[in-house]
Amino acid sequence: MNEVRGERRTRGGGGAARRAERTAVSIETAKFIERKIPNFEILNEEALEIIEYNADTVLEEIGVNFVDNPGALALWREAGADVQGERVRIPRGLARALCKTAPSRFTQHARNPERNVEIGGKSLVLAPVYGPPFVRDLEGGRRYATIADFRNFVKLGYMSKWLHHSGGTVCEPTDIAVNKRHLDMLQAHMTLSDKPYMGSVTEPVRAEDSVAMSKILFGSDFVDQNAVMTSLININSPLTFDGVMMGALEVYARANQAAIISPFIVGGAMAPVTVAGTLTQVLAEVLAGVAYSQLIRKGAPVIFGAFVTSIDMNSGAPTFGTPEAAHITYGAGQLARRMNLPYRSGGSFCGSKLPDAQSAYETANTLNMALLSGVNFMLHACGWLEGGLVSSYEKFVLDADQLGALHHIAKGVSMDENGQAMDAIREVGPGGHYLGCQHTQNNFKTAFWRSDVLDYKPYETWEDEGARDSATLASVRVKKQLRDYQEPSLDPAIAEALQAYVDQRKASEPDAFG
Amino acid sequence: MNEVRGERRTRGGGGAARRAERTAVSIETAKFIERKIPNFEILNEEALEIIEYNADTVLEEIGVNFVDNPGALALWREAGADVQGERVRIPRGLARALCKTAPSRFTQHARNPERNVEIGGKSLVLAPVYGPPFVRDLEGGRRYATIADFRNFVKLGYMSKWLHHSGGTVCEPTDIAVNKRHLDMLQAHMTLSDKPYMGSVTEPVRAEDSVAMSKILFGSDFVDQNAVMTSLININSPLTFDGVMMGALEVYARANQAAIISPFIVGGAMAPVTVAGTLTQVLAEVLAGVAYSQLIRKGAPVIFGAFVTSIDMNSGAPTFGTPEAAHITYGAGQLARRMNLPYRSGGSFCGSKLPDAQSAYETANTLNMALLSGVNFMLHACGWLEGGLVSSYEKFVLDADQLGALHHIAKGVSMDENGQAMDAIREVGPGGHYLGCQHTQNNFKTAFWRSDVLDYKPYETWEDEGARDSATLASVRVKKQLRDYQEPSLDPAIAEALQAYVDQRKASEPDAFG
Repeated sequence: MNEVRGERRTRGGGGAARRAERTAVSIETAKFIERKIPNFEILNEEALEIIEYNADTVLEEIGVNFVDNPGALALWREAGADVQGERVRIPRGLARALCKTAPSRFTQHARNPERNVEIGGKSLVLAPVYGPPFVRDLEGGRRYATIADFRNFVKLGYMSKWLHHSGGTVCEPTDIAVNKRHLDMLQAHMTLSDKPYMGSVTEPVRAEDSVAMSKILFGSDFVDQNAVMTSLININSPLTFDGVMMGALEVYARANQAAIISPFIVGGAMAPVTVAGTLTQVLAEVLAGVAYSQLIRKGAPVIFGAFVTSIDMNSGAPTFGTPEAAHITYGAGQLARRMNLPYRSGGSFCGSKLPDAQSAYETANTLNMALLSGVNFMLHACGWLEGGLVSSYEKFVLDADQLGALHHIAKGVSMDENGQAMDAIREVGPGGHYLGCQHTQNNFKTAFWRSDVLDYKPYETWEDEGARDSATLASVRVKKQLRDYQEPSLDPAIAEALQAYVDQRKASEPDAFG
Repeated sequence: MNEVRGERRTRGGGGAARRAERTAVSIETAKFIERKIPNFEILNEEALEIIEYNADTVLEEIGVNFVDNPGALALWREAGADVQGERVRIPRGLARALCKTAPSRFTQHARNPERNVEIGGKSLVLAPVYGPPFVRDLEGGRRYATIADFRNFVKLGYMSKWLHHSGGTVCEPTDIAVNKRHLDMLQAHMTLSDKPYMGSVTEPVRAEDSVAMSKILFGSDFVDQNAVMTSLININSPLTFDGVMMGALEVYARANQAAIISPFIVGGAMAPVTVAGTLTQVLAEVLAGVAYSQLIRKGAPVIFGAFVTSIDMNSGAPTFGTPEAAHITYGAGQLARRMNLPYRSGGSFCGSKLPDAQSAYETANTLNMALLSGVNFMLHACGWLEGGLVSSYEKFVLDADQLGALHHIAKGVSMDENGQAMDAIREVGPGGHYLGCQHTQNNFKTAFWRSDVLDYKPYETWEDEGARDSATLASVRVKKQLRDYQEPSLDPAIAEALQAYVDQRKASEPDAFG
């Protein structure tokens, strides 16, 4: 591995300009969102203080478990926690104090520096669906995902104007051995896209591979000094930090790579059925997780995560786009901002099995709420179906299109002279028509957001063209985007070095499945 | 007419208790929403002041037209406006001063007093789609609406738990003569539902009929002293008040009945393409319209309306659920609150031809935004399809179900001891499970909003049952609700008197079509 990295250093020397050169094919990608609108603050000061006080009570009196992780227990003991077995009780205020070294914002670099994203502050970075073992499309129906599907979703993400991030496990390539698929996934993100990406978290050694491959792509020194991955570290709610996930976190924090520290909440199952109770647990978990990241390496970039769904008490199914999820997401955003940390939540969540009206209601409820919650990093921003079991081709492009609306809402209202439009109102006057006026001519191209996939046609045209519903229109767009896709250029030496690394690692151990 | 009303007075004597008796069949209807969450304030103080200043400039320098309405011109002249031909220029500050006599909130009474709604303040009242000439359902496709459809939609509205209002023209009964259909529509609302309703506005004489029939239903004195109708008065944007609409407004204001004074804005066509420009025009129009209502009768209840859509500059089609509509709706809510007036906006807007993903994205975008905009009266809250050309049976029940989510979001976050759930967190502890804990047992029935129509079933069950999409599930619900429908009881003498009024008025003139 060192050899490969060494070669890379010699060849390159790094620098944004050289990396930009590598990407000759230019696909339009919007800059990450910089909000010019306020956040929606659902909790008042008193409520926030109660939740913060209660979270400290949870940490001090109940504590959290660090499982299969003697190193973590030692670090906590040293930091001043009360450690009994695997239970770590953290004195009031200690976790919050430890969290203070985490940066309030950071840059995640892409191999194409034009695609770099700022995470924190008023920014919002959008990344695709993560984790489904199945895919679905109109022709093929629902089936296990393969590496071919994975590559398709990376391509669709690259082609999506409103998606800033290539994501991670856009679907599980179930045709590749469990202990090797991370290599193919990383290689796909690195070669088929030039947007930023996520690292593997399923075993610490796979996180090591992620760092090593990133060093091939970016250069070793660059990776040491810059975040080039943001990876997803789930907390085993309630209040449990398992050894594998923490092992991955340790790898990333030591390598100065970013991690989302994210309670995985199904309300009523992994957290209390009430909003304030869930927020208390979420905050306690994030405080402990972020504090732990800073025990590993002070200053390691982390994100306050909150994956939130509730449960249908009749069927036991997780439900999405619900009022309770909205309350929690708004509240957690406020808690994250009070910790001065970037915030991750939201996504194209839905429980529906098809990209139908249900999926869109649930997704739109979530996307709108996430925007106003002040989310800085939105994983699952497009393509999620069936409670996260399925990556949907059609829903991917439908959701990705809706993300354009978020960009425009976030722009806020222009109050300059052109925005005030007094000349237009004078020119047109009572009973007139704005379509032809000068102000409309000057502004119509940029005034309104426009969907690239939904139907705006006259009824008769729409009927003549087959009375297509949204899923059918989306299917057409999926095929067009995959047909139009062009791979962003990459230094062949780097591509070869990545291939060599993947081949070598695959040869080093037998396949493992399940 | 007086005879009928006289009879009613003798028979009745009025009073809430007696009216309650009439409704034996009890269908569950949620109380109108009382928000315990803040509004989303997109504009800062400076922006609001600029828009308010500019609106006054529009009224003073450009003015508005009151068309075919010499009486209005005389009233304006008397009030101090500069009237030239049909153009009314209103000195800075005059319109706002005249608006001050309009109440900040009012009660609209229903014949079942349990269904009374408060309009204004923190309330949100939800009413169904208004105006479409077509209907669509899964079996019958798209077709002209008939009075049979109209009655079906009134029944669906009555059966909808989350709908507080029976609305007005839930679809156009195109099989009834234009000059008579308002009688059948009013009769349907009055007899098939006991929720509050809207009056006719298509001719002043039809507004008179609406008042007369309401006096049969409620008693003449009661109607003189209480709002029993909220009717929709559209402004002919830009800046034009036509004689027919103003004639209807005059009838309602004189009768102390409520009216929504509502600019009808298609951005880029009837208003500037920019948000601040549109808000300026909307405010100028509402100021003039509300001021005029108060010239007719001081204290007449009115609502600050804003129907907002933008135009697709490629096809010319109106578009819905867009970022620009969100900006305008948020901003207009702020302007309405600064006038201390109830606010009408939002709805189940979409441009889609089918109740598919597009319709749901656009609708959910609008519903969520309207809730946070502080809307007090939401017309079109369910059932709108194809840019308002179609009332959709399936979308009616899908949207009406989503309105339940708005109720729950508006509840805000409970911070009492039960909400904080510290006992539950203690009981469950790290690695535990909340499903069985006491706190969950105590709260699970009310903790989470649950859809009554969307799919939450396991994949295999869903597939076994035919892999139904949302529209198909909605179609099942439509049929069930129409099957389960029971007419709310009504004093037979009142029903007869209404029938007699309708018969007499229909006999009094020949049918007119088109």
